[in-house]
Amino acid sequence: MPGIFSVGLLGHGTVGSAFAELLEARADEVEHSTGLRPQLSGVLTRSQGDFQAILSDSQLIVELIGGVDPARDYVLEAMRAGRHVVTANKQLLSRHGEELWACAREHGVQLRFEAAVAGVVPVIRVLQESLGTTFVERVHGIVNGTTNFILTEMERTGEAYEEALAEAQRLGYAEADPTDDVSGADAAAKMAILARLAFDTPVSLGDVRYEGIEHITADDLEYARDLGLALKLVGTAERVNGGLSVRVHPVFLYGGHPLASVSGPFNAVTIEAPSITEITLQGPGAGGPQTATAVLGDVVSAMIPPAQTPATRDRLEIVSDVESAFYLHLEVADRPGVLAQVAEILGLQGASIKSVVQKGLGENARLVMVVHPLLESRFFAAVELIGGLDFLRARPRAIRVIEEQFT
Amino acid sequence: MPGIFSVGLLGHGTVGSAFAELLEARADEVEHSTGLRPQLSGVLTRSQGDFQAILSDSQLIVELIGGVDPARDYVLEAMRAGRHVVTANKQLLSRHGEELWACAREHGVQLRFEAAVAGVVPVIRVLQESLGTTFVERVHGIVNGTTNFILTEMERTGEAYEEALAEAQRLGYAEADPTDDVSGADAAAKMAILARLAFDTPVSLGDVRYEGIEHITADDLEYARDLGLALKLVGTAERVNGGLSVRVHPVFLYGGHPLASVSGPFNAVTIEAPSITEITLQGPGAGGPQTATAVLGDVVSAMIPPAQTPATRDRLEIVSDVESAFYLHLEVADRPGVLAQVAEILGLQGASIKSVVQKGLGENARLVMVVHPLLESRFFAAVELIGGLDFLRARPRAIRVIEEQFT
Repeated sequence: MPGIFSVGLLGHGTVGSAFAELLEARADEVEHSTGLRPQLSGVLTRSQGDFQAILSDSQLIVELIGGVDPARDYVLEAMRAGRHVVTANKQLLSRHGEELWACAREHGVQLRFEAAVAGVVPVIRVLQESLGTTFVERVHGIVNGTTNFILTEMERTGEAYEEALAEAQRLGYAEADPTDDVSGADAAAKMAILARLAFDTPVSLGDVRYEGIEHITADDLEYARDLGLALKLVGTAERVNGGLSVRVHPVFLYGGHPLASVSGPFNAVTIEAPSITEITLQGPGAGGPQTATAVLGDVVSAMIPPAQTPATRDRLEIVSDVESAFYLHLEVADRPGVLAQVAEILGLQGASIKSVVQKGLGENARLVMVVHPLLESRFFAAVELIGGLDFLRARPRAIRVIEEQFT
Repeated sequence: MPGIFSVGLLGHGTVGSAFAELLEARADEVEHSTGLRPQLSGVLTRSQGDFQAILSDSQLIVELIGGVDPARDYVLEAMRAGRHVVTANKQLLSRHGEELWACAREHGVQLRFEAAVAGVVPVIRVLQESLGTTFVERVHGIVNGTTNFILTEMERTGEAYEEALAEAQRLGYAEADPTDDVSGADAAAKMAILARLAFDTPVSLGDVRYEGIEHITADDLEYARDLGLALKLVGTAERVNGGLSVRVHPVFLYGGHPLASVSGPFNAVTIEAPSITEITLQGPGAGGPQTATAVLGDVVSAMIPPAQTPATRDRLEIVSDVESAFYLHLEVADRPGVLAQVAEILGLQGASIKSVVQKGLGENARLVMVVHPLLESRFFAAVELIGGLDFLRARPRAIRVIEEQFT
């Protein structure tokens, strides 16, 4: 008779039920790897189960309820009782991570959370273990599958945002109320967690600037194609002047960037460091079996002695103004001197033009350009001035561009 | 005073010296993560150092000598003496892996080898830890940076193989004698290791079929572009009819495949499983600092209690005949009925044509097609027959195609 390893499960939604199934299906392999046979000791749902009873019967608690309350209390209580915890809860970790990690250290238990960011893509393990002592310079991530699906659809079909969103809802990639995804809030929570791990400094959701994809038009994607660019909702966490910037924006990527080809509901994260150049991890960011696989990987690791999340040591400043290249789209009256005037204003702010396309539209013209990286504040100051020019026929449209690297 | 963790280093070439530097540079972070300060206790080079003295002074041995002898004896002796070992030695593991893993289990020590496959790309850790109990269906890998660089150059410039190889040698991506890389032998050793871990069955270098890129012409790459394909040297390990196939070939990838956009000296590995869909890990496959970073990640993990490579449990049969789609390139006399006759021969073997391009060349024509997946033996039987037709003007050229998936 092998020993038993008892697992208490909190939550029985899509991921919870997939995890319960997977744990049973892979029990032989887990026993082979660890010498112990995993077994569900109890399941807590909204309508049944008793947390205290489950806790006292379990060696490890899997928290798949989501949200802050009551998940936070359950997780803290489990760790205080000496139980390892595996969670997929990005909201909880991005808001109360330091409290939870401190509790885990204090009680000598493991708190694992691979499934909280990018589903089964093993970015948490890689940041904590493979690169745990690496000096990371930058992390870029496509960490929201809903928005990546919508942008991919818009690019593929030429559809408007609203149509692509409706398609995503029809296929189950977007919720009835898609706000959390399309506004960038979901991606921001995940980037807070990644930044905490990559840079060993406290980062919470409030530190992350974010912007969604609701304002993207089919037109933007048409030009993207002409210019060889891919439009993605990208989260960025990077060292800037000795501090840290964490943000989520729609950005264009040049074709050679490893995130440019990430399509549909997939997620991907690129980690850059002087000693590694860059590595990219890509895969499904959601889905019941996929996320359950990430949870099971954590459970198995917790059954074997531990890697802990170390206490933070640095406290880097949150930087708000960073450099970026930009795509700038202007509708202007088709008359001489327009490009020269725009270029002059940009030049005064230090923005130099990398490429430009001009198309006539009857009496008006469309001027689309990419400018080389400069401080965002200076770029937006230039756009403000350009927006006031008398030949402008519509509000200028600006989107960040991540340039090709390492190729 | 923190405790010291003493590391003995065997080998002081590109990776060895980069590791020694990195260990010193990151000692603070390692101490922060583990509570112990790592310190080199000795370095063995061809001309100096004494293995026994280094062994007795070390808690862990880093083996970066390469090759089978004397590395194998050193690694075995270190583990028998109760020392953890970290190695980057793909030759040793692909030929003597089972002996080494058994020795590690027997003596309760860790044998870690992230750097042996795809450099700093964390594919070993992900297969062993994140996916350790996952039922893996298939692994595809671009695991040789030299050949990927050469193919990327040929595609980018239209150069012949020989010119691109010379460029790779000039830039240090290929050795003076490039045979091990361009023949596919290096990739085969790495695929043997990946297959062992992914499928939990003994696999050694002798089980891997391989073919190199020496016969690829600029012309192949020109058509690839027309057809929207990327040419890569890909290693594949997959379950076939209850057995396992492990092989390395040049293959075309459709643009949407996650390996299609991997360019230059980069490596990438895609892991497919029913419960994960697929995940892809990409990054530099070589380089001193990059490989040293992988070694350091292993050292740090070994300083914290262990994950072991479990004994194999299954013993899957090695399968030699597998299904593949193909690109087929024929130079033929330009006369009526040629395509019909070719299509008939293919059809008799069960090969159906997915797409075809025909171009006239004076009295001759070039017929380039992609056929849907079929057993390789049947496809080659058809090619054999086609090769004997009187209107053929050159030997038929066939290259495997991996089709787009999950997009």
